[in-house]
Amino acid sequence: MLRPLGDRIIIELVEVEEKSQFGIVLPDSAKEKPQEGKVVAVGTGRVLDNGTRVELEVKEGDTIIFSKYSGTEVKYEGKEYLILRETDVLAILG
Amino acid sequence: MLRPLGDRIIIELVEVEEKSQFGIVLPDSAKEKPQEGKVVAVGTGRVLDNGTRVELEVKEGDTIIFSKYSGTEVKYEGKEYLILRETDVLAILG
Amino acid sequence: MLRPLGDRIIIELVEVEEKSQFGIVLPDSAKEKPQEGKVVAVGTGRVLDNGTRVELEVKEGDTIIFSKYSGTEVKYEGKEYLILRETDVLAILG
Amino acid sequence: MLRPLGDRIIIELVEVEEKSQFGIVLPDSAKEKPQEGKVVAVGTGRVLDNGTRVELEVKEGDTIIFSKYSGTEVKYEGKEYLILRETDVLAILG
Amino acid sequence: MLRPLGDRIIIELVEVEEKSQFGIVLPDSAKEKPQEGKVVAVGTGRVLDNGTRVELEVKEGDTIIFSKYSGTEVKYEGKEYLILRETDVLAILG
Amino acid sequence: MLRPLGDRIIIELVEVEEKSQFGIVLPDSAKEKPQEGKVVAVGTGRVLDNGTRVELEVKEGDTIIFSKYSGTEVKYEGKEYLILRETDVLAILG
Amino acid sequence: MLRPLGDRIIIELVEVEEKSQFGIVLPDSAKEKPQEGKVVAVGTGRVLDNGTRVELEVKEGDTIIFSKYSGTEVKYEGKEYLILRETDVLAILG
Repeated sequence: MLRPLGDRIIIELVEVEEKSQFGIVLPDSAKEKPQEGKVVAVGTGRVLDNGTRVELEVKEGDTIIFSKYSGTEVKYEGKEYLILRETDVLAILG
Repeated sequence: MLRPLGDRIIIELVEVEEKSQFGIVLPDSAKEKPQEGKVVAVGTGRVLDNGTRVELEVKEGDTIIFSKYSGTEVKYEGKEYLILRETDVLAILG
Repeated sequence: MLRPLGDRIIIELVEVEEKSQFGIVLPDSAKEKPQEGKVVAVGTGRVLDNGTRVELEVKEGDTIIFSKYSGTEVKYEGKEYLILRETDVLAILG
Repeated sequence: MLRPLGDRIIIELVEVEEKSQFGIVLPDSAKEKPQEGKVVAVGTGRVLDNGTRVELEVKEGDTIIFSKYSGTEVKYEGKEYLILRETDVLAILG
Repeated sequence: MLRPLGDRIIIELVEVEEKSQFGIVLPDSAKEKPQEGKVVAVGTGRVLDNGTRVELEVKEGDTIIFSKYSGTEVKYEGKEYLILRETDVLAILG
Repeated sequence: MLRPLGDRIIIELVEVEEKSQFGIVLPDSAKEKPQEGKVVAVGTGRVLDNGTRVELEVKEGDTIIFSKYSGTEVKYEGKEYLILRETDVLAILG
Repeated sequence: MLRPLGDRIIIELVEVEEKSQFGIVLPDSAKEKPQEGKVVAVGTGRVLDNGTRVELEVKEGDTIIFSKYSGTEVKYEGKEYLILRETDVLAILG
């Protein structure tokens, strides 16, 4: 098992179709493309300056959208994961 | 549904006419052009160093102006959205 | 109506004569040229780390001087405005 | 009248002789040259994170030394002023 | 013995196989490769602005994953160690 | 008299011999060379976020070592001074 | 005597053998090489935002490891010292 620290989360990548409904690749290359992932573990939270720990909003099992190029790839027991900070998470799906 | 985190909001873009009243493109290219969007979801707010959470000023349904080039485009269930931080919102319309 | 957020203000630009009394353009190009504007709306203020909100010093109707190149131009209902942070305001006139 | 905001002050420049006692320009060009000014207005002070406002140390009428290249030049009713942050003030004279 | 300061930890490197199950080197060179280490000593923690010291989450004996290129190599009594800040630790294994 | 503001101090430079005991210039040019000065005035101290003012450790009359290239040269009543922030002071002598 | 300020410490350098057991220079040039020093003086500590002063962890007489290229060399009464911030200290030996 992998236990992320502080405000970090661990996700498995979810494959997202990069084409439009009609199969045309959208040319909006100037914008950062987001990606989807499924949360498999969350850290214990961020410690504030007054000493209290703020729990993460993201929970295990959530499907999230995150900024491409954020995080660090980790391979563990034959599977690939991505470790992100919660601040790299843009939104929770569903 | 997309639920933004912290101080993030999700908007649908609103098309804005980029020409002047008489159809002439304004040449003020040195200035950052703002854009309009309609807020479809808001995050739970920003956590202060004393542990309290500050609700966002922007509400669901607001039409806002934001700085061009800010935010991340997201496609979800066939529609396009933009995820911004509240700090990228310049003003609320109306 | 445009409602600015947080520590932002909205101004209408005031035309300022860029020449000296005798019609000579002042060559002090190394210095940033300030500009004048009339405040038409102010935000709700900045939230401190202890959770209190600090009202802006600038009030609606004030004529202000601000650093050139700061802010974002906005066109709304046929008129042009500039949205600034209060920190870009150098002084209030009168 | 010009009223500076927050931790800003407004000064009139004081001409300083740039030569040594014997009329020789000092070649210490690697060092930033300070300048003198007379304070004509001071802001209401800086707001701390606990919500209290810290009055400026600099008072109206003080002659100060400040770092060259800091501040913004302002022309108001035919006179030239410089608007600085108090942090750009190096020392008070006399 | 080496005693790390503050939020630092000392680890011994653990050799990680860089190939896939079938012996093929994974070409994902654009991503930062994480590494494994075994924690041999931890600092006394980070001091918050309110004066309390936050103990590290990482404990002696933990196997951790950390960002490649972080930390400083130290050789002590013939053995090599790496000194990291806890913030460079991505996850704890097992 | 020159009165420095906040955490600033004013020093007179003390000439330091840059050669070794045997008159050889030390070639350690990659390292920043420190310099000596005598403190002639100190500011009122730094204001913390809780509103209290922290007195400077450096006192008038102290001989200090400071990082070369820090501070601003000031000429006042025919004498040259250097205005530094206390944080540029490395150590007090004696 | 040299008295360092705040979170600074003064050390004497300790010569460290840069070769391996068999006299071969280790080619790990991409990593920052740490160095050893003996602490001869420590500052009074760092002042937190709540006004309390945090004593340094490093004590006079400690042998420490620090990041190469950090600190400032000082020559005082014929001896060479290095002045560091405690944050540049990686670990205490023994």
